[in-house]
Amino acid sequence: MNIDNVQNFAGTAAEFFRDLQARICAAFEALDPGHKFEASGWERGDEHRLKGGGQMRVMRGKVFEKVGVNVSHVWGTMSEAGQKQLPGAEESGGRFTATGISLVAHMANPFVPAVHMNTRYMATSQAWFGGGSDLTPTFPFDEDTTDFHAAFRKACDGYRPDAYAEYKKWCDEYFYLPHRQEPRGVGGIFFDNLSSGDQAKDWAFVRNVGEAFLDIYPRLVARRKDTAFTDADRETLLHKRGRYVEFNLVYDRGTKFGFQTDANPDAYLMSMPPVVKW
Amino acid sequence: MNIDNVQNFAGTAAEFFRDLQARICAAFEALDPGHKFEASGWERGDEHRLKGGGQMRVMRGKVFEKVGVNVSHVWGTMSEAGQKQLPGAEESGGRFTATGISLVAHMANPFVPAVHMNTRYMATSQAWFGGGSDLTPTFPFDEDTTDFHAAFRKACDGYRPDAYAEYKKWCDEYFYLPHRQEPRGVGGIFFDNLSSGDQAKDWAFVRNVGEAFLDIYPRLVARRKDTAFTDADRETLLHKRGRYVEFNLVYDRGTKFGFQTDANPDAYLMSMPPVVKW
Repeated sequence: MNIDNVQNFAGTAAEFFRDLQARICAAFEALDPGHKFEASGWERGDEHRLKGGGQMRVMRGKVFEKVGVNVSHVWGTMSEAGQKQLPGAEESGGRFTATGISLVAHMANPFVPAVHMNTRYMATSQAWFGGGSDLTPTFPFDEDTTDFHAAFRKACDGYRPDAYAEYKKWCDEYFYLPHRQEPRGVGGIFFDNLSSGDQAKDWAFVRNVGEAFLDIYPRLVARRKDTAFTDADRETLLHKRGRYVEFNLVYDRGTKFGFQTDANPDAYLMSMPPVVKW
Repeated sequence: MNIDNVQNFAGTAAEFFRDLQARICAAFEALDPGHKFEASGWERGDEHRLKGGGQMRVMRGKVFEKVGVNVSHVWGTMSEAGQKQLPGAEESGGRFTATGISLVAHMANPFVPAVHMNTRYMATSQAWFGGGSDLTPTFPFDEDTTDFHAAFRKACDGYRPDAYAEYKKWCDEYFYLPHRQEPRGVGGIFFDNLSSGDQAKDWAFVRNVGEAFLDIYPRLVARRKDTAFTDADRETLLHKRGRYVEFNLVYDRGTKFGFQTDANPDAYLMSMPPVVKW
């Protein structure tokens, strides 16, 4: 692994993630007239042995009750605790580069599904991609589930014939609450440690996952956002969100990793819903 | 450790916990006219290798927005995963007895502090007590903090001169959110693995902790429950509760233990606040 190549590629990837962030935010703002994302940038200084930074964008609107779209690009030397958790990090002496986009949307209307999407590039002495997207409706509609899966299936089929089946299964297994014996939602795709040996091909797939998200999710929002709902429907949504909190704080790797670092809790807890009931 | 003595003692302890539960619930109902606790019992059958059961009592009132008071008494043989976490359990071949009372109150008025109290008796090849109580105000009042601590200090001073200082420190260390770099609240006492060799004396202390709670907390509720508050105060409360959720799902031993067993999630997640914001 040539470190200059890694840094150059990470820069290219970060540029794509920033562009995707801008396009996603524009699409979401178009669906929620009168509301805008608020951006806040952050930087890592040398005192953290880390460089780079990122930008959080959050909108609290009428349709999007709370949505966060974060992009980050961080590199440097990670703590020893961190090294044990990341493939190839002990071999690189802790040196790493990471860039990605991460998105969670909690919707005001109980008939609009919540959604998560994340894609990322990681490099230590190895380099790989990870990511996925899953849909969490309170009241599932077969039509939405079918269309959501079809969009990601298309991205997967362009990559490798078995990819969709594998990544769908991985998603179902990952987004599951054992203590409730229930899935978080209706699934999607999930993949990690992706490194086929053909980086250009892997990266095209990862970009297509982002594009698939941008293609399908705004359509689902437009389809359901004006559906009439009752107070009881809204109560059901708020309780469903409790499951989301339980999953993210107890099981989600990204959130757990955040708790173990000195990262900004507002960033890795951006996924928390705006209002929740138990 | 004579197993018959253990079982007899656990039965006596459970009887005390049930009586304490009844008295606490009566005191809380008196402070929230027109509202009553709803009780639901549960039993463990042989298919779980466990026997015994418990009773959850929950009130969703006007003053007590959500309060749960649970008593349980369970015995049998625990899973191998569980054995590794409990002192003396490998030596007992997994046989154990556990009984305790557990209480969490989330209050409607932002000026009434939330509270937690738990005391328990555990026996494997060893036997010990654990417990404590801590106060989580959104807007702390020195008077409340002082009175709360004084009540538990009195219980501790009757047990051992250094107990209060030790158990206060343990509480401050335990109820701390490292990722936020902030304490959960204003403390109280916390103790575990308590076994001085004089079981009668230890048990008297544990009972006094319960009595101290019943003495002080209703007085704090009465003192603050009619304080006028604004929508902004209530918002601050709902965000403070987010910290409570983060602590319980990420750090709390009892909750984590619940997630790792096949216990009823409604029981170990009784501590979740009724409404939360992030």
